[in-house]
Amino acid sequence: MDLVDQHYMQQALNEAKKGLEADEVPVGAVVVVGGRIIARAHNLTERLRDVTAHAEMQAITAAADFLNGKYLIGCTLYVTLEPCVMCAGALSWSQLDRVVFAASDSKRGFLQAGVSIHPKTKIQSGLLANEAKALLDIFFTTKRK
Amino acid sequence: MDLVDQHYMQQALNEAKKGLEADEVPVGAVVVVGGRIIARAHNLTERLRDVTAHAEMQAITAAADFLNGKYLIGCTLYVTLEPCVMCAGALSWSQLDRVVFAASDSKRGFLQAGVSIHPKTKIQSGLLANEAKALLDIFFTTKRK
Repeated sequence: MDLVDQHYMQQALNEAKKGLEADEVPVGAVVVVGGRIIARAHNLTERLRDVTAHAEMQAITAAADFLNGKYLIGCTLYVTLEPCVMCAGALSWSQLDRVVFAASDSKRGFLQAGVSIHPKTKIQSGLLANEAKALLDIFFTTKRK
Repeated sequence: MDLVDQHYMQQALNEAKKGLEADEVPVGAVVVVGGRIIARAHNLTERLRDVTAHAEMQAITAAADFLNGKYLIGCTLYVTLEPCVMCAGALSWSQLDRVVFAASDSKRGFLQAGVSIHPKTKIQSGLLANEAKALLDIFFTTKRK
C-alpha cells in the first residue's frame, strides 16, 4: 500500500468523521496537487438542504477556486466512498489525473451505473475501505434506531 | 404542443440568452412548481471557473433553497439542452416530477451514456429544440473564429 496515498485517504477519513459528528452521511474528500492538499470537504446535504452538496462536488469547487481555473489537471481526489453518477460526471468534467476511493457503493456508485470518468483519469479503489465503511455503518445503524 | 410547457421553456431560453451575452455556453433552466417559477439559472462555468456550475445544478440548488428542503417533489425542470451525466445524477437525487429538455446532446447527454434519472421522474424532450440549438450554434461558431 502506498504510504502517501494512505496519508491522504486518512485526511479524507478525517473529513468524513466531521460529517458524522454533524449528522451528515459520513463521506469526506480531499484534493491534492504537488504534495499539497488544496481542498477538504465533507458531505453537507443536510445542512445545506441541497442534494448536490456531496463531498466531491464541494472539493472540486474549492480546488478550482484555489487553482483559479476550472480544470483540475495534475490533481488527485481522495474520497472515502465510491462517487455517485453526479460526482463521477463532475469529476469527468474536471479532467483530474486520479481518483482514489475507499469503500465501494454497490447501489449508488458510478461503476455499477456503467458511467466512466474522463479517459485521462486513473481510478483506484479499496484503500482504507474498512475504515470508511465503518463510519457509514455507524451512521446508518444510528439512523435506523 | 403544450402551451404551458412552451411558456416555461421560453423562460429557460431567455436564461440561455443571458448566458450567451455573458460568453458562457448558452444553456438555461427554470424550475416550476404549482404554476410558479421558483428558480432561474444559466450556465456559469466560465465566470465561476467551476465545471459544476451548469444551469441545472444551480437551478436545483436555488429551488431547494426556495422550498427549504432538499427534495424537489412536485417540481418540473425545464432546460434548453439535454442534461449531462453530472446533471442527470443531481436531478435523480432531487426526485423531481418532470424534466423537460429542448435540444438533444448526442456527445455529452445522459441518454447516450445510458444513465437514468429517478424512476418517479418523467422525461420529455424536443420542445423548442431548434431555438435552443440555434443559441448553441451561435456560441460555438463564434468560438471557432
